Amino acid sequence: MSYKSDIEIAREAKKRPIQEIGDKIGIASEHLLPYGHDKAKVSQSFINSVQKNKNGKLILVTAINPTPAGEGKTTTTVGLGDGLNAIGKKAMVCIREASLGPNFGMKGGAAGGGYAQVVPMEDMNLHFTGDFHAITSAHSLLSAMLDNHIYWGNEADIDTRRVTWRRVVDMNDRSLRQITSSLGGVSNGFAREDGFDITVASEVMAILCLSKDLKDLEERLGSMIVAYRRDRSPVYARDIKAEGAMTVLLKDAMQPNLVQTLENNPAFVHGGPFANIAHGCNSVIATQTALKLSDYVVTEAGFGADLGAEKFMNIKCRKAGLAPDCVVLVATVRAMKMNGGIAKADLGGENVDAVKKGCANLGRHIGNLKSFGVPVVVAINHFVTDTEAEVQAVKDYVKSQGSEAIVSQHWEFGSKGSAELAKRVAEIADSGASQFAPLYPDDMPLFEKIERIAKGIYRADEVIADKKIRDQLKLWEEQGYGNLPVCMAKTQYSFSTDPSLRGAPTGHSVPVREVRLSAGAGFVVVVCGEIMTMPGLPRVPAAETIRLNDAGEIEGLF
Amino acid sequence: MSYKSDIEIAREAKKRPIQEIGDKIGIASEHLLPYGHDKAKVSQSFINSVQKNKNGKLILVTAINPTPAGEGKTTTTVGLGDGLNAIGKKAMVCIREASLGPNFGMKGGAAGGGYAQVVPMEDMNLHFTGDFHAITSAHSLLSAMLDNHIYWGNEADIDTRRVTWRRVVDMNDRSLRQITSSLGGVSNGFAREDGFDITVASEVMAILCLSKDLKDLEERLGSMIVAYRRDRSPVYARDIKAEGAMTVLLKDAMQPNLVQTLENNPAFVHGGPFANIAHGCNSVIATQTALKLSDYVVTEAGFGADLGAEKFMNIKCRKAGLAPDCVVLVATVRAMKMNGGIAKADLGGENVDAVKKGCANLGRHIGNLKSFGVPVVVAINHFVTDTEAEVQAVKDYVKSQGSEAIVSQHWEFGSKGSAELAKRVAEIADSGASQFAPLYPDDMPLFEKIERIAKGIYRADEVIADKKIRDQLKLWEEQGYGNLPVCMAKTQYSFSTDPSLRGAPTGHSVPVREVRLSAGAGFVVVVCGEIMTMPGLPRVPAAETIRLNDAGEIEGLF
Repeated sequence: MSYKSDIEIAREAKKRPIQEIGDKIGIASEHLLPYGHDKAKVSQSFINSVQKNKNGKLILVTAINPTPAGEGKTTTTVGLGDGLNAIGKKAMVCIREASLGPNFGMKGGAAGGGYAQVVPMEDMNLHFTGDFHAITSAHSLLSAMLDNHIYWGNEADIDTRRVTWRRVVDMNDRSLRQITSSLGGVSNGFAREDGFDITVASEVMAILCLSKDLKDLEERLGSMIVAYRRDRSPVYARDIKAEGAMTVLLKDAMQPNLVQTLENNPAFVHGGPFANIAHGCNSVIATQTALKLSDYVVTEAGFGADLGAEKFMNIKCRKAGLAPDCVVLVATVRAMKMNGGIAKADLGGENVDAVKKGCANLGRHIGNLKSFGVPVVVAINHFVTDTEAEVQAVKDYVKSQGSEAIVSQHWEFGSKGSAELAKRVAEIADSGASQFAPLYPDDMPLFEKIERIAKGIYRADEVIADKKIRDQLKLWEEQGYGNLPVCMAKTQYSFSTDPSLRGAPTGHSVPVREVRLSAGAGFVVVVCGEIMTMPGLPRVPAAETIRLNDAGEIEGLF
Repeated sequence: MSYKSDIEIAREAKKRPIQEIGDKIGIASEHLLPYGHDKAKVSQSFINSVQKNKNGKLILVTAINPTPAGEGKTTTTVGLGDGLNAIGKKAMVCIREASLGPNFGMKGGAAGGGYAQVVPMEDMNLHFTGDFHAITSAHSLLSAMLDNHIYWGNEADIDTRRVTWRRVVDMNDRSLRQITSSLGGVSNGFAREDGFDITVASEVMAILCLSKDLKDLEERLGSMIVAYRRDRSPVYARDIKAEGAMTVLLKDAMQPNLVQTLENNPAFVHGGPFANIAHGCNSVIATQTALKLSDYVVTEAGFGADLGAEKFMNIKCRKAGLAPDCVVLVATVRAMKMNGGIAKADLGGENVDAVKKGCANLGRHIGNLKSFGVPVVVAINHFVTDTEAEVQAVKDYVKSQGSEAIVSQHWEFGSKGSAELAKRVAEIADSGASQFAPLYPDDMPLFEKIERIAKGIYRADEVIADKKIRDQLKLWEEQGYGNLPVCMAKTQYSFSTDPSLRGAPTGHSVPVREVRLSAGAGFVVVVCGEIMTMPGLPRVPAAETIRLNDAGEIEGLF
């Protein structure tokens, strides 16, 4: 049997006009701002108007540690959303927007897969509604104003050796990682070291995704630290008066984007911060608006549950006053096998022992998630090659962990394949069983917060940080930043900081290499290992074969 | 009497839904891709479907050399379009899109002024439909692919000292004018000198505005020269396989943007290349499509007629097979006075002598335009402070030059104020009097083309260029580029290369400082004087006061 590719399925989608999708959730045409006939933004005034609505139930989809086998987190999010609608519930999906640049390196990512996708897939992998371009513009404006401030006399007394505000571009361009700028003489400014990150790594992105409204956005933008003076005191974006114009540039980007699933159910696709140096979740404003418009909101977090769900709980939910009613932990038989020590090339054929061995990774995630007080259901994202015995092994293991695993076949069958999962998730969400609490209180010292995550989630023995780092954390506490949550930046492939340690490693330590203050976003980034904030292109980038064919279709992007 | 500001008038506009505007020119909803409720793109398939329609009449609006008093070229373009519609003609306006970056330096430019504006003005000065962001992305992709090519072995043998492809960003950022990139070690590439221009200076912008369709666009993108080898042979964008993916990034940006005038008449606002190092006209695809959809198309060219109209005729019309049926030359009494030697501070009060003296500038433009075989009408863009005697002096002078001048009061009265101008322009356009021909044939040697413009339009005695420049032009002729038109980059404030020489200077020479080959756009840029391709921000940039007020309105942008 042969299967259609994601893009083939996406191109065959019977999309409804976006206003019809808006009508389903009560958005009148004057409040739904179309971008073409299949995308739209929701007006700020509509969002304001629904604030008194009752909240729906919030369902988080997270996953085991990712393996090259793929776990299908977004696919499950979309499939579950369609499943809930199919069983008669009013449900919405909230996922992240894709970054443009990486599509030209490796082939572009779909928004879901198989028969559980959000469309229009091609637009979503290209410019979409321009949100990321707006973020690049706002970031670039601050960059220009900062150097302009220095150029015209440097009234704020910025130490040009201590400018922390790097530039961004939404492209994989390693040659911009480190540059010297303002060369060429007096009229071009004061030469200094600088560099570019990719746009999704911008603090502006994290802020857009955490802000309640435009006022909050402006306040946070102004609070970003852009440089330090010789006396080490911080210079804020508001010191160079950039936050107002940045907010103007971001006013449309703050409005959630409405699209549809293959089954014509509403989905918000909005925001896309990095999941290492930022919190990796779609926007608070999209999630909160969706909760006002539907009875169930299915959303996802970045990477595996050790990073993504932890940040969703400790950063997004804490800051936005959200609480998940149910957590769906996505696993696949194939990924279990890889966690059990099997190489990707050897995944073919039944191997129940490997599945059993790999389940340790799953088990630790279940325990971790329960420590937040939330009920957990495991979704086995079904691959057509999975055998019954393999699936049963996962189910049995999950049961032994006091949870339950449900096979979902949304990839192959859409909502028909996810009905059982949807039914159970709705029951749990409706049960009121969730007793959500973040892992640590606001007033815990920063270093203890790091330890709490490292020991409680990663199950490490210790956190290693030299005096310089501990002193920096103490200084921030003295400056009033001690109440912020921490944002862990470590490999997504392992509970440890060693990407090759699959399964459920113990006896490891977490070395902190660097700490950074994202004062506008409102977290302290804790860098454990090499974190790449500007990817490069591969030897043969996908861009070389991307083109429009004679029918005007895009080739090579997927 | 007090007058409302442009932005006040724009905010009071009674905009009609954009589909209603589309209906006026026969664009069905499936072919009109909305961006919000007041902007839309026209689908490529619709554009293809109207190719067999008869062309309407083409009217070019150009102006005398700009002075700080302002001449109101766009305002007259819009006012004339509304005037034509008001007298019962089916007319469209085609103007350029605004660049984002400069709005944060000085206050933003309106699209027209008074009661002759195109709306939504604020969107048009911000992200609009994302065209310029798409151009920035396409340009940046080529930049990244170029350095990536060098990084992975440099198969094309690019001489890293001879990379001519600079980077772009749509922001005024002097600190990026000259940089050193690829610093930081082996994994970041080979260090080299580089720099950024503002997006509108990108050759991609010029190409987008000159391409007939997506196929032509891809071909031209591939033909751009990005670097030279040690043997001085050119390296093209197609040598690094970038043109296909760039075209994919630009496919939506190639579709003209439909908006409306204050009087709800249709306007295409599309493309915006620099008017010095590029040709300064809106897109060919917008102009050609408008000609298929209406009986009269009013469009404008950049700067004064010596640069803008000359390039419109010799580059845009030549390349696109267009021919203007009438040229409207905009002048103001105030600008005449400044050309007559009066300072801006002294413009108050009647001064007929100064007006008369300044008319020499107007007269030369009339003569120049007639040399293209096109009928010329002078529009006196009326200011409320103009006296009758002053206006009469201009009229008399224009009559003495064998042309006619008509006062137009569109700024104050909209189409009611431009009816007389519209009536006369329609008569001339309908008369078939135009015998348009470019100023020089394709096969004239490049240096002679420069001389033809310098002597025929600027009325200079000679062109000065050292041997290196003449040799470069000869080399390009040998390489097959001799048939290209030349694109003059000189000051817009004077016929000469000295911006302080107003009026109609004689006895001057035109020194050529540099020549550049825009092989994709299809012209040779001739740089005469200092040309800034990356502006800086002023000491107190407008951005410092731009913000959203509590009503959600933008303050400080205008």
